[in-house]
Amino acid sequence: MHMDIKTLIREEMLKQPGYRADVTTCRIKMDANESPFTIPLALKEKLFEEMKKCHLNRYPEPGALHIRKRFAGYYGVHEDMMMVGNGSDELIQILCTTLLTSSSVVIAPVPTFVMYRIIALNSAHMVSEIPLNPSFDLDADKMLEQIAAQSPVLIFLSYPNSPTGNCFSERIVESIIEASPGIVVIDEAYGSFSGKTLVPLLKKYDNLVILKTLSKVGLAAMRIGFLIGSSPLVYELDKVRLPYNVNSLSQASAGFYLDHIDLFSSQTQEVMERRTELFDALKRINGIHPYPSDANFIFFSCDFDTDRVYSDLVQEGILIKNLNSPGVLKNCMRVTVGTRNENEEFLNALKKVISVGSVV
Amino acid sequence: MHMDIKTLIREEMLKQPGYRADVTTCRIKMDANESPFTIPLALKEKLFEEMKKCHLNRYPEPGALHIRKRFAGYYGVHEDMMMVGNGSDELIQILCTTLLTSSSVVIAPVPTFVMYRIIALNSAHMVSEIPLNPSFDLDADKMLEQIAAQSPVLIFLSYPNSPTGNCFSERIVESIIEASPGIVVIDEAYGSFSGKTLVPLLKKYDNLVILKTLSKVGLAAMRIGFLIGSSPLVYELDKVRLPYNVNSLSQASAGFYLDHIDLFSSQTQEVMERRTELFDALKRINGIHPYPSDANFIFFSCDFDTDRVYSDLVQEGILIKNLNSPGVLKNCMRVTVGTRNENEEFLNALKKVISVGSVV
Repeated sequence: MHMDIKTLIREEMLKQPGYRADVTTCRIKMDANESPFTIPLALKEKLFEEMKKCHLNRYPEPGALHIRKRFAGYYGVHEDMMMVGNGSDELIQILCTTLLTSSSVVIAPVPTFVMYRIIALNSAHMVSEIPLNPSFDLDADKMLEQIAAQSPVLIFLSYPNSPTGNCFSERIVESIIEASPGIVVIDEAYGSFSGKTLVPLLKKYDNLVILKTLSKVGLAAMRIGFLIGSSPLVYELDKVRLPYNVNSLSQASAGFYLDHIDLFSSQTQEVMERRTELFDALKRINGIHPYPSDANFIFFSCDFDTDRVYSDLVQEGILIKNLNSPGVLKNCMRVTVGTRNENEEFLNALKKVISVGSVV
Repeated sequence: MHMDIKTLIREEMLKQPGYRADVTTCRIKMDANESPFTIPLALKEKLFEEMKKCHLNRYPEPGALHIRKRFAGYYGVHEDMMMVGNGSDELIQILCTTLLTSSSVVIAPVPTFVMYRIIALNSAHMVSEIPLNPSFDLDADKMLEQIAAQSPVLIFLSYPNSPTGNCFSERIVESIIEASPGIVVIDEAYGSFSGKTLVPLLKKYDNLVILKTLSKVGLAAMRIGFLIGSSPLVYELDKVRLPYNVNSLSQASAGFYLDHIDLFSSQTQEVMERRTELFDALKRINGIHPYPSDANFIFFSCDFDTDRVYSDLVQEGILIKNLNSPGVLKNCMRVTVGTRNENEEFLNALKKVISVGSVV
């Protein structure tokens, strides 16, 4: 029996391509905002000894209660305000599934993390994208106007923002939270590198949700994200969370992260030092225009065709993110801060690659 | 600023409690249909050596392509027909998110796996539950009548069915697939213990989806599920799947499962032998009425108040599933097949517990 599957699927979903992760492999990987640092061997052995204590034939602890409690303490909130996810992606999906219907509107600035739009469109009617101003801050007037006009159920703000790397002005963010009739999600995926957090605002606003993750600070493989929000909201979101969403070894590694927070913090500190060096070096290259970053990556525009720069860099064994698309991201790229060696190799390759190309 | 969160959430979701996993801990765990067998120590070391090769600071392989390919081969289907999930739960959620809107109807028999209803209600308008007949087979007339009347977008059938343990008649299942205007999901979570599969029907029906999992055969902690369906459907579902939904160590353990399939198959075989013994022993107990099982658990009804039996068993250090609720599950329980020792301890405890209680 043959069936046209497309007749079963909503228009919004058919039209979008979904997220296609880059599967190019290179010697040096600076495309996905991962930590460039591994766990020292002796400690890694210790982590795996911890993991071996897990009973692989048994389901994980439902709701990751132990980890939830420990991280609630770490972030200084009540455990009822906290949920653990299979990466922040899953938490974004839980927010969308819980709150959106096919008539709902979502607001996000643009450019920002593309998964907000992709995930929201699976449930929502529309994602209204509001351009950032020329200095990549939120356009306050436009945001407030659209909030009033569209009554969005969800607003997504990345803080610092990916791919631009800056933190939006806190005053504007707060005015958006105040004006919003729905939930405002502040994604602090890169918060460790900015030294800033809006967690204190949770005391003031019931409609504020903060997302955190361990993916940028050394444990991307383990998929661990955290959501913090008002307890009545978390109670409802928790109905949508699948009971065993965080596997046993990921829970063990999240505990290990807190047990060895000094190691991970010093790695974060080192990324921030390397970021300064990388930014200064990029600034010295003719035709490369880096933007100041509060994150573990640097956004830059080029006077060159970045489609070519991207593939020439791949030839040199270096993978970075090509953001090139019509409009504000025309010939823009994003490079994850690497180790000192990786940054040097990248800079040398970039200089080589652009020296042979013509300015666009 | 205070906000009434409930005003933001759909009625269907507010009304349901979600899934609350039992967090009671006991010496002997026979409640969750896990494998009672662990991986022999030397092999477990080997698995962890494999896992250590993963770069924990890097994201997992998106789409688990390697594993997807290997399991497609194992199940004898094309890799484009296969998707890997963070447990089958996630795959059920992806199906619901992709296919349902707030006006859609879902059909499932009752009693069956409760997550179909819980997950579907997060997207659908209604889950229409159709009682099984007295021998726990599908009520063909009623199912076909409701399919015609309600045009369900999704139908969920568990094969073998949980909690009753039997496989529905294949002829009725096929007539349902033929009559269905939407997708029919056959959940073969317990398929390893029945020796039966409907995978061959995929050649015949585009609207058939089969679910598989490693959770019942020794790797519940790792959360690995598989979806098999027509490639145009999987293409759309894959847009909803989050790019890094299966973490690196789970991918490694799925590979390990296939590398050591003989071990896991022999454990499955042993569970089936223990199942026969357990069934025969339960049958010999006065007031206990076990039903024949194609799964790794046994469903039984009692002439006693199972709320009391459940808590008395917990006192004895033994956790099983109390299904007691008004109607067909009145004073019913489900016990997972354990090791020989676990089964004996359970049987002795059960005899002790019911000897002191009165028949209801």
